[in-house]
Amino acid sequence: MSSRSRILLPLLTILLYGSLYSQQPAEEPLRVILLIGDGMGLAQISTAYYFGEAEPNFTRFDKIGLVKTNSISNKVTDSAAAATAIATGVRTYNRAISVSPDSVSVPSILERLRDEAGYRTGLVSLTSITHATPACFYAHVEDRDLHEEIAAQLVTADLDFFAGGGLDYFTKRADGRNLYAELAAQHYRLDSTDLSAPDPDRRNGYLLAPEALPSKVEGRGSFLPDATRMGLDYLTQTGEPFFLMVEGSYIDWAGHAENDTMLIEEMADFDATLGIVLDYVENNPNTLLLVTADHETGEASLGKKYQPHVVFGQRKEIPDEVAIRFHSNQHSAVHVPIFAKGPHEDLFLGIYQNNEIFTRLLAALDIE
Amino acid sequence: MSSRSRILLPLLTILLYGSLYSQQPAEEPLRVILLIGDGMGLAQISTAYYFGEAEPNFTRFDKIGLVKTNSISNKVTDSAAAATAIATGVRTYNRAISVSPDSVSVPSILERLRDEAGYRTGLVSLTSITHATPACFYAHVEDRDLHEEIAAQLVTADLDFFAGGGLDYFTKRADGRNLYAELAAQHYRLDSTDLSAPDPDRRNGYLLAPEALPSKVEGRGSFLPDATRMGLDYLTQTGEPFFLMVEGSYIDWAGHAENDTMLIEEMADFDATLGIVLDYVENNPNTLLLVTADHETGEASLGKKYQPHVVFGQRKEIPDEVAIRFHSNQHSAVHVPIFAKGPHEDLFLGIYQNNEIFTRLLAALDIE
Repeated sequence: MSSRSRILLPLLTILLYGSLYSQQPAEEPLRVILLIGDGMGLAQISTAYYFGEAEPNFTRFDKIGLVKTNSISNKVTDSAAAATAIATGVRTYNRAISVSPDSVSVPSILERLRDEAGYRTGLVSLTSITHATPACFYAHVEDRDLHEEIAAQLVTADLDFFAGGGLDYFTKRADGRNLYAELAAQHYRLDSTDLSAPDPDRRNGYLLAPEALPSKVEGRGSFLPDATRMGLDYLTQTGEPFFLMVEGSYIDWAGHAENDTMLIEEMADFDATLGIVLDYVENNPNTLLLVTADHETGEASLGKKYQPHVVFGQRKEIPDEVAIRFHSNQHSAVHVPIFAKGPHEDLFLGIYQNNEIFTRLLAALDIE
Repeated sequence: MSSRSRILLPLLTILLYGSLYSQQPAEEPLRVILLIGDGMGLAQISTAYYFGEAEPNFTRFDKIGLVKTNSISNKVTDSAAAATAIATGVRTYNRAISVSPDSVSVPSILERLRDEAGYRTGLVSLTSITHATPACFYAHVEDRDLHEEIAAQLVTADLDFFAGGGLDYFTKRADGRNLYAELAAQHYRLDSTDLSAPDPDRRNGYLLAPEALPSKVEGRGSFLPDATRMGLDYLTQTGEPFFLMVEGSYIDWAGHAENDTMLIEEMADFDATLGIVLDYVENNPNTLLLVTADHETGEASLGKKYQPHVVFGQRKEIPDEVAIRFHSNQHSAVHVPIFAKGPHEDLFLGIYQNNEIFTRLLAALDIE
């Protein structure tokens, strides 16, 4: 080997590997999955470590940030202002659905990826698909209670896949429109009874309850993991980049109901869904996954558990058990964790305001 | 330029920079700083973001992990078992000071670095220096209340710098020994009244209260940032590698007292101390800083604040304020954050049991 080739060969090897590596993202379509555990603070996540049987899937994350959640109008945000911040990058007032503080529509990450980069889009929720968290990704209204207006905006949102509740806002409307029929006329395959197999050649929508789906303790079954897996499979077979948002809605409702059994069940269901998504991310390396919450709900804690009777005037601790306690039925202002896995996951480290999730996501996707 | 030098020059530049970079750690002594906010959960950290005037220094961290805190005996740990896990890597029973579940002494990270790698050592606490958290770094006893035995073990611990309270355990002892005099005889410069300038050529100890120092609201002043800065300066001028543990002890006590003003003041004091340490880390790149808690105290939350009077049967929210609420005067089992900055900071990412802090720290320091 000549002295020149002794230098050139390693150099060429480095260059070749470098170019292969840098080209990898261009070969596979980019995918973005956002899991929102509504009301899922660190106390809620911690419960999964004390009440589940297996190690929670959260342990599979390395990259963790902490998110400040206050809105423009209230130190304690609601789901609407928080989802607007995450979805649009704009901090606004409580109750706003992706409108600015002066009620001007601001485009969501879903809309921008759809319009500027040709992404396929999907939404999965356990509430009405018109509820604050999913709504902020496709609708723009001044108040979260305008469900019928939000449903009307879904008809023109060009979502490729959606699954949740809220059928009544499409079919039993004050304006007499039948949005279900309008969606069907738009090349949608719809289902209002089952999570039936999607048609790979059409857009697919599932509206499986008049308003919210039931909670786990009320018998929801495996809708959340099933719909998430179905959405992932459907969007993947398009061969296009996609954005999928999945909401674990009942973690919030467990806090509002101050119901510990409900929280344990909903966290287990969310974690099972997370396991499916993490498997997907590991098998599809060009996928960026973010898991976070809009806020914490219930001022929850995980404290000592005591024997029900008092022993000699003292509460006696049961050392190998803990008790979930809710200290209000309201949201709180404690920071919430964010977990990231995939390309540019490091952009989501640190402590920052919730609207920076949007900013950092644009940076991760190299969008101006 | 010949074609060969066109290849060789960039290659040599890369090799030169690479070797400079890899040699950097060997040039400066390695330093480890561990800040423990006793009882400092995410709710406590969040308060700093709502009650402080400036952006908290916590925002200067990128690398964040989450730590599970339960002990061998209790799902809700005490400070002794938690500090043992952090200091020794061994999970044990509540009340144990760096002994295993069968009460056998296990060496602490401070002792190992001192004995195996020639580190200088320092401890700063707001409680008695014999209290559970600092004690676990140099003492080994079956029960945290054995303060006089712990003090006796400090005499043989060869600490280079210590500052805190607990004078009575050295001078007013059942066994009649005067440990203060014994320390002075061991080449220690001691002070029991002031945080006077340390003697750079001697070891230095400060025992500034009979037991604990006062809280901030009781008039502690700037002891914590001052003693921390002093410890850093003193240990740095030795030119040796060092390990310094600093405990913000009263965050825990604010929870036990269910005192929101105390918590705000103690978090501000801890954050000011953190600012000093982060400045040090930024100016001394071969320093690894870890900031964490042993557990959360008080089942604290940061919830809506309401007007004191009830309006038409409803509590009326004050939207631009939040209220700190403690829901018990006990520790809780919620995971606590860990923040890392410095060489091998990435080793502290993810969600893991508290004793892994020790394991990961050994890995970061390349100790078997």
